[in-house]
Parts: sequence; structure tokens; C-alpha cells
Amino acid sequence: MKLNMDRLFEAVAERGHVCVGLDTAADYVPEKERRAAASDAEAVLSYNKAIVDATIDIAACYKVQIAYYEELGIAGLKAYAQTLKYIREKNSLAIADIKRGDIADTASRYAKAHFDGEFEADFVTLTPYLGMDSIEPWFQWVEKKGKGAFVLMLTSNKGRQDFEELALEAAAQGTEKKLYDAVGEKLSLLAADNLGKSGYAAFGAVIGADPKSPEEREKILKIRETYSKLFFLIPGYGAQGGAAEDAALLLKDGNGGVVNASRSIIKAWASFGEKSNADYAFVAAKAREASISMRDAIKSAAN
Amino acid sequence: MKLNMDRLFEAVAERGHVCVGLDTAADYVPEKERRAAASDAEAVLSYNKAIVDATIDIAACYKVQIAYYEELGIAGLKAYAQTLKYIREKNSLAIADIKRGDIADTASRYAKAHFDGEFEADFVTLTPYLGMDSIEPWFQWVEKKGKGAFVLMLTSNKGRQDFEELALEAAAQGTEKKLYDAVGEKLSLLAADNLGKSGYAAFGAVIGADPKSPEEREKILKIRETYSKLFFLIPGYGAQGGAAEDAALLLKDGNGGVVNASRSIIKAWASFGEKSNADYAFVAAKAREASISMRDAIKSAAN
Repeated sequence: MKLNMDRLFEAVAERGHVCVGLDTAADYVPEKERRAAASDAEAVLSYNKAIVDATIDIAACYKVQIAYYEELGIAGLKAYAQTLKYIREKNSLAIADIKRGDIADTASRYAKAHFDGEFEADFVTLTPYLGMDSIEPWFQWVEKKGKGAFVLMLTSNKGRQDFEELALEAAAQGTEKKLYDAVGEKLSLLAADNLGKSGYAAFGAVIGADPKSPEEREKILKIRETYSKLFFLIPGYGAQGGAAEDAALLLKDGNGGVVNASRSIIKAWASFGEKSNADYAFVAAKAREASISMRDAIKSAAN
Repeated sequence: MKLNMDRLFEAVAERGHVCVGLDTAADYVPEKERRAAASDAEAVLSYNKAIVDATIDIAACYKVQIAYYEELGIAGLKAYAQTLKYIREKNSLAIADIKRGDIADTASRYAKAHFDGEFEADFVTLTPYLGMDSIEPWFQWVEKKGKGAFVLMLTSNKGRQDFEELALEAAAQGTEKKLYDAVGEKLSLLAADNLGKSGYAAFGAVIGADPKSPEEREKILKIRETYSKLFFLIPGYGAQGGAAEDAALLLKDGNGGVVNASRSIIKAWASFGEKSNADYAFVAAKAREASISMRDAIKSAAN
């Protein structure tokens, strides 16, 4: 069976590194369209569809942040399900950004919920705090359906210093290891026996990109080198402050990662002066422009 | 405004430490009732209502594990919302076991989703990997509505050794600190300015109970002593292997924690020989018996 991670690798080779983040709040929708919609959830779905249509040949994949849909209750979760379906029917790849993490029995239920049925996605994001037995039930779906995941390793928010970057007791004098390294090591072990054709494991890692000091650039380069079998989902670009050069540090031979941008693409339209007349077509056109610039900026930084 | 954590403290003082875990899968429902139901989601909801009715004077609170409902898609999430509503209308307390953890913008959306609207709960569970800026947006709801949370600190699954129990670089020679201590310390800081009347903070911690070696018992006692302002949600009882004596180590002056049991209560009926005739009334009666035994066992172990 073809791994979704291999499909993602091919999508990157073909179309570049852009992952469009559909973290769509109802208040992002132009007022005219929002008023015309039957509900906020319907408006969000139409907004998403317009963006997907306009970026399908640019984006390697789409990441859908479930929080924005949960906020709208049951109707929002219907829009979430329909957004995933729309992306997958277009033969693109959908990452469900759900950051789940729970004990094994529960994780099995979650995996069934997000890799099958109404909420089926191609990839999920997972959080590792509880340990690898919270990841393994998801991993069974690699064999079943070629599914993939990205496990949080080092994120782009300031709070990463609270736990992710804590130094662990050194195994030997002179060695240095942080919590995120422990996660990366366990993930690499899980990966070792399950490499796809592209050379990457079915499960990759989330590694944030944001402005780096020279020391931080070194750290990032070391992460890329050390965890060479892990494909990276790279958040933090655009509205979160990361630049193409930062993201490029996390790529490998022009592949090996997708870079997520949400607001800088899906709200690109709002930085132009036509708010009252804006419609889905305008949203879509500006999202396309922003995606193309981003794709080209990363490609050029990666060379 | 009254903190939900104070309400929980009072409920424990009045009714004991049992938290009934409504981690209800459709295949737990007796066959006769499942066949008669309009859908699996409807069957799960009726099952939950029967158990809530039968344990309302025994349980301090209910914990609803969202994974089991997500597994049933949109219909399942409707049953989830209705289960929370039923518990809260009965004036009991509902913990949404959602283990969310995401960057601040997203966390704000999640908090609105689970502390307001269709999915409103009294408490949520959170996962700390991303750092305290992923917890703080939830904390704003303490002031708004008296809401509470339990943040994962040390869980009861085997995988806790992978990350939660990793030793951190010692601040000074001879000191020992694990990752879960770092979480406990940050939580205690967040708590310090927000103690309820009961002396506990609005946000507490998840600390697992399971069979302990003498050294592990010492460790648990130290956790209880060190994090004296944190109210504990204690999973791992019953089907997960923890005993009343283990759970009691995490209590303080006969309060300070609720002990969750799911399968050992909600599936208690299945260990009796009447499977083909079993109905909701039988499920409810056995859940009540199991809750009473558990309540009494913990009370007696706590003295």
C-alpha cells in the first residue's frame, strides 16, 4: 500500500512546500458573504472550498485545525467533515490538526474516529506527553490504510521553553539532550522499520520555524540532520513570524517538509482595501497570490 | 463567583470521591437495547442517562471521554453534547476529557468550544506539552464562569516513563526533578493567585493511581505533599489496575481528589450472567452497586 507520507513527498516534489492551514473562523468571512450564508458554519465551508479551488495546484496539502470548527458546535463539525471530504475528493491531502494524545484504549477510538468514517483524514497531528503507547494505536493505521501522522516535537510558540526545551539529565558527561530530543528519538525508533519509498517514515514530526539567532539556526540544522527519516510539518510561518529562510533550514534536498501558513494565506484578502465588497472570489484570488509568493520564497530559500 | 473546583470539593465532602467515567462505546450497550435504539449514538445516550440517574447521589462528578463519541461521528458528538447537558441539568459536575493542548490563538477557540455553547462542560482536561501559553487561554474562563481544568502531570499508563518521568538536568547537585515536576511547578505558580474557598486552585492536575512499589508510594506521597494546592483527578482505578489504597495516597484530609473509574462501573453489568436479557435498568443497578463499593473502599482506605 502506498503511504500517505510518500504521496506527500511526491506532492512537494511537484508543487512545492506550501501547506494551507484552513483554521477558518466565521469572522474571517467577508461580511457580504457571511450575511448571505444560511449559517456561520455554511459560510466557513464555502470560504474553505473557494480557497481549496484556488490553491489546489499550488498547495502540497491542507491542514484543518479542528478547534475553529468545534467553536461552532455540531454545525461547525459538519463543516469540518465536509472540508476534509472536499480536499480528499480533489485528490489532495488533508492533515487533521487535532493534537490528540491519550491512553491506548482511548487512542484506538480516536484513531478510528479520524482515520475512518465521517472525519477521515490522511494525516493527524498528535501530542506525545503520555508516551509512545499513546501513539502506537494510531500507527496501526499505517498498515491498514497508509495513514500518516505528525507528532509534536518542537513547536514555534514561546511556551516551548516551558517543557519541550527542558534539558534532560545527561546520559554521559558532555552530552546534551532536551525533551524534544527524547521525543525525536522515540519517533525515529518507531519509524525505523516503516520507511516509505521516499525514505521517510509514515509518522513525522512537528518542528516550528521562527526567527532564529545563529545558535538557534545551528540547533535547527542539527535537528534536521539527526532526525533524517522524519518528514516535518513546519508551523509558524507568516502571521506567526517565521520566514522562508527559517523554514528552509528544516528541509532536506528540497523536500522533507511542508510549511504551514494559515492567516497569511486565508486572510490575505483582508489586507487589501475592499472589505465591504469582498466576496469569496476575492478571498480565493488573494489566497492564490499569497500561496504562490510563499511557495516561490521557500523554493528560492531552499536552493 | 463560585469556582467549579469549590463545587467539586463540596461534592466530594458530601458524596465521596467517585468520578464516573462515561467512556461509553456502543458495544457496551446490552444487545436488546442496542437493537431497539434508533442509532448507536441514541443507545449510548440512553445508557449514559440510565447510569447518571442511578449514581447521581453517589458520584462527585462525571468524566466524559470525547474519543468514544467522536468515533460515532456527528451523531456521536450530539450524544456527547446531550450527555454533558444531562449531567449539568441534574446539578452535578461534568469533566470533558478532551486533553486539548495547542498554541494560544487555537486554545482560545477550543476554550470557547468547551466552556460555552453546545459542548459546555464544567471542567476540561488539558495536555501541557506545548507550554503554559497553551494553558492560559483556558484560565481566562476561571474569572468568566468559574470553570476548572485538570492538566496532565503524571498518568497511569506504562508509557508515562517515556517522557513524563524523564529526569531533568539537576538545578543543584543532589536535587532530583522529573518532567512531571516541571509541570506541577508551573501549574502551582498559575494557581497561586487563584485559590478557591476550599484552598484549592481553579486548575488541578491529573495524577494516576496504580499498584505501587514502596518507592513509588513514597513518590506519590511526595507529590501530594509538594503540590498541596492542586486538586487531583485520579485515573487508573479498577479496570486499569489501581486500587483504593493507591488512590487514597493522593487524597488530602479526606478530600483533594476525585478518582475516576469507567469500565469497572459502566460495564459492571457485563460480569453478571444475564447478558441476553440485560436492559438499561440492569446496567444502572449494577453501576450503582459498583459505585457504592468503590466509594466505600476509597473512604475506608483514606482513613
